[in-house]
Parts: sequence; structure tokens; C-alpha cells
Amino acid sequence: MVNGIERPLDLLNSAKGKEILVQLKTGKQFVGTLLAFDIHINVVLDNAREIEGGEQKTSYGLTFLRGDTIIFISPSAASKA
Amino acid sequence: MVNGIERPLDLLNSAKGKEILVQLKTGKQFVGTLLAFDIHINVVLDNAREIEGGEQKTSYGLTFLRGDTIIFISPSAASKA
Amino acid sequence: MVNGIERPLDLLNSAKGKEILVQLKTGKQFVGTLLAFDIHINVVLDNAREIEGGEQKTSYGLTFLRGDTIIFISPSAASKA
Amino acid sequence: MVNGIERPLDLLNSAKGKEILVQLKTGKQFVGTLLAFDIHINVVLDNAREIEGGEQKTSYGLTFLRGDTIIFISPSAASKA
Amino acid sequence: MVNGIERPLDLLNSAKGKEILVQLKTGKQFVGTLLAFDIHINVVLDNAREIEGGEQKTSYGLTFLRGDTIIFISPSAASKA
Amino acid sequence: MVNGIERPLDLLNSAKGKEILVQLKTGKQFVGTLLAFDIHINVVLDNAREIEGGEQKTSYGLTFLRGDTIIFISPSAASKA
Amino acid sequence: MVNGIERPLDLLNSAKGKEILVQLKTGKQFVGTLLAFDIHINVVLDNAREIEGGEQKTSYGLTFLRGDTIIFISPSAASKA
Repeated sequence: MVNGIERPLDLLNSAKGKEILVQLKTGKQFVGTLLAFDIHINVVLDNAREIEGGEQKTSYGLTFLRGDTIIFISPSAASKA
Repeated sequence: MVNGIERPLDLLNSAKGKEILVQLKTGKQFVGTLLAFDIHINVVLDNAREIEGGEQKTSYGLTFLRGDTIIFISPSAASKA
Repeated sequence: MVNGIERPLDLLNSAKGKEILVQLKTGKQFVGTLLAFDIHINVVLDNAREIEGGEQKTSYGLTFLRGDTIIFISPSAASKA
Repeated sequence: MVNGIERPLDLLNSAKGKEILVQLKTGKQFVGTLLAFDIHINVVLDNAREIEGGEQKTSYGLTFLRGDTIIFISPSAASKA
Repeated sequence: MVNGIERPLDLLNSAKGKEILVQLKTGKQFVGTLLAFDIHINVVLDNAREIEGGEQKTSYGLTFLRGDTIIFISPSAASKA
Repeated sequence: MVNGIERPLDLLNSAKGKEILVQLKTGKQFVGTLLAFDIHINVVLDNAREIEGGEQKTSYGLTFLRGDTIIFISPSAASKA
Repeated sequence: MVNGIERPLDLLNSAKGKEILVQLKTGKQFVGTLLAFDIHINVVLDNAREIEGGEQKTSYGLTFLRGDTIIFISPSAASKA
């Protein structure tokens, strides 16, 4: 398996301390450094920025995102956002 | 880890007694002092104010917010709202 | 802590017998005297009145509100509605 | 407490055999005699009638209403519907 | 109690083998003979027909309906649909 | 009982290896051979084809359908789709 | 049974390391190599690409997709997307 990912949460675990892209059901995207997550996919980002149309719109600093509003999380896409 | 945040709820715990920004699924934002929260992310704010377009719209005082209506919570963004 | 609120439900407990404002996901607001609540945030109001645009629209008397339709509950805002 | 209501379901229990008004998330209202309910707020009405704009629209007789479609239940408002 | 209905599922139990009307959240209605149900209100109808505007639209024969899409079930209204 | 169906899942069990019609909440319909299902009504179809307006639109081969997106499943209607 | 699929998750298990097509409730489709999944149907894709109108739109690399946003997963359709 790539990067030792056997369960879905392994990807989030390996992304701790790194920038991730979070796509919300509302259509908004957040980029920030993943500090923590749980089994509900609640996540805490440091230096969280809302992205719209590829541009940074608002900075929120330390932010708690509720898991049930998340569609997908991509660590590698964060650098492109 | 930044600020000793190992689990998502650690951020909420460290924000007790401080101003937080709460983004609801309805599109509304609340700002207020975090008094209490639980694992459902139900929160109680003191001096809760509804924000729209960066302006305070309505004051609700002590307010219970049901967790399943919350998208994200940001302690540091509250001062900018 | 303000008013001894350590858990979110403590606010509802302290509001028993008092007027509260309940905001529903449908956009409607109810005002009434809180008689009872449970962990699902199901609530029973006495003298429940539906509010629209700051005006009382319909009186429902004793009313059971299902918790999953509630966005927020504010005891102190009831007097202003 | 009014009418001995300490928990939300106490109101439904005291309304058994009486006419109640049920507001659904779809916007429809039902009026009928409450025969039974459970903790999911599933209810069975006898002589159930759909109400629209204050007028009776359709009669359904004995009807099972699934709890997760219900916004509120008012025993006292049934007589006015 | 009418027809010995003490719990909501008692109505469904007494309707086994009879025609029922099922209202779905999508706005569609089904009529058919109730063969089976469970606590999730999943139901199986025999000779299931979709109804639109009081007219039969499509016949589906034996059909499994997922409970979480159901608003209400009326045994007595089936004969009128 | 018709076909020995006492519980809703009995219908799905008897339909294994046969063509079924699956109606999704999105409005789309799938037809395919039922290979497997579970208590969440997750299903696997072989030779799955999306149907729109009575015409086959796309073939997906072996396909996993998540149960919470399903409205109804009809084995006998598959031959007519 | 085709391919030894007795339970729905058997299909996902047999698709590990292969390209799959994932249809989301938002209308978006993802194609990528399935690395991991769990009982919530959370999945991790490697080399994930968003597909729109049959064309690749965005590449996300390693991506975590939350199960509750998924409608269907098709391993064999991935080569056609």
C-alpha cells in the first residue's frame, strides 16, 4: 500500500502537521495545517484560510471544522490551492 | 502540537471563556463568549451576537447552539468579525 | 463560569419556567415558557407563539418541538421577540 | 410544572385520546386523535386530516406519521385548525 | 384504544395483508398490499403502484421501500387513492 | 405471506441473482443483477445500468450503491425498465 | 456469486489497488486508485482526479472521501471515465 495507508484515517494521521485542503458540502474550501482529527472526521486546522476560485478569501487562524460538513480532504492538493 | 491540541475538542476546551466565531449551516454567523460545549458540539455562548456581512445584527445574550447546525468554530476570528 | 453553566444543557435547565426564544431550521421562531427538555433537545413550551418579523403570528398553547429542527435557543432574547 | 410535564414526552402522553396538530417538515399539517407514539416521535393518529391554509384538504383515517418528518406537535392548537 | 393500537407499529402490524397508502418525502405516493415492515419502517409492498394526482402511474409489483424516505402510512386511505 | 416474505430484507434475499430496479433519491434509476446487500441496504449490482426516461444511459458493470441514497427496490419492475 | 461477492464490502475489498469511479451526492465524480475503505464507506484514493462531463478537471493526489457523500462506487467504470 502507498504510504502505509491501510485504513482511511491513516491518511489523516500521516497528514498531521502538514497543509491540507478541506472541501465542505457548502461549496467552500479551507486550507490549513492539520493539528487534530477524530473518528467523526472533526478536524482542527491551524492558519485556516477559506479559498474561493483559487484565491484566499478569509483567514480564520485556529479553526474547528465539524466532520459532517466535509466532502473530501486532500493533503497534496493544499499546495496548489 | 500547537497549543497542546491533540484532539479536536481540545481547541474548544482551550477557548472556554474566550470569544469565538461560529459559522452555521444556514449561512449565519454568531460571535460570543464560549461557556460550555459537549461531544455533539452543542455550545453555549454568552453575549451572543448574530453577524451578517461583518456587522452585528441581533444580540441574543446567553444562547444554546445545537451542534448539528454548526460548520466551523474559530476562536481567533471572533475579534475580526 | 457565568450562571454556573458547565455543560450546554445547564443553560436549558436554568431556563425552566422562563420564556425562551427557539429558532427553527425552517426559519420560524417560537417564544414560550420552557417546561421540559431532553438530551435530544426536544422541548415543551407553554403558551407557545410563532414569531415572524418580530410580530406574533400564531398561538399554539402547550407545544412539543422536536430537537432536530432547532438551531438555537435563547432565554434572554425571548423578551425582545 | 404545568400539567405535570417534567419530560417532553409527558406532553404527548397527556394528549393520548385527544386531538393534536402535527406540523411536518414538508410544510403540511395534520390534525387527528393521538392514539400512540414512541421515543422516535412516530405517532399514530385516528381520523387524520391534512390541513392546508386552515382548511381540511384530505382525510386519511388511521395514519402512521414517521417521527423524523415532524417539526412540532400541539394538542391545544388542534381545535383551532 | 381504537383497534388495540398502543404503540405506533401496532397500526402497521394490523395492516399486514391489507392495502396501504405510503407517502414519500419525494412527493410520490405508493399504494400496495403490506407484506412486511421493520423498526426502521422499511416496508415491502405487493402489487405496488405509484400514484400521481390520484391516478395510477407505474406498477412495480413486489417493492421494498426504505423507511427513511417515508412521511406517513395510511391503511384506510389506500382504497381512495 | 406472499413468497415467504416476513421481514423486508426477505424480499432482497429472494432477489439475489436476479435483475432489480433501484430508485435513488437523486432521481436516477439503476437496473442490474443483485449480488449482495446488507442491513444498511447497501447493495452490489452486476451489469449495472443507469436508466433515464426508460432508456439505458450508462453502463457501470459491478457497482456498489450506498443504502442511504436508495428510495425503493423492485425486482419485478427491472424487466420493464 | 460473481467474483466471490457475498457482502457489499467484498466488492470494495476486491477493488483495492485498482482504479474506481466514485459518484458523489454533489454531482461530482472522482476517479482514483482505491487504497483503503471502512464500514462508513469512507475511502482513500491515490491519484484522485475530479471528472466533469467525461473530462478530468482537477487532480488531488492522495484524497480522503467521506462516506456519507457517496452515492455509488464502480470499479469497472473507472477506465471509461
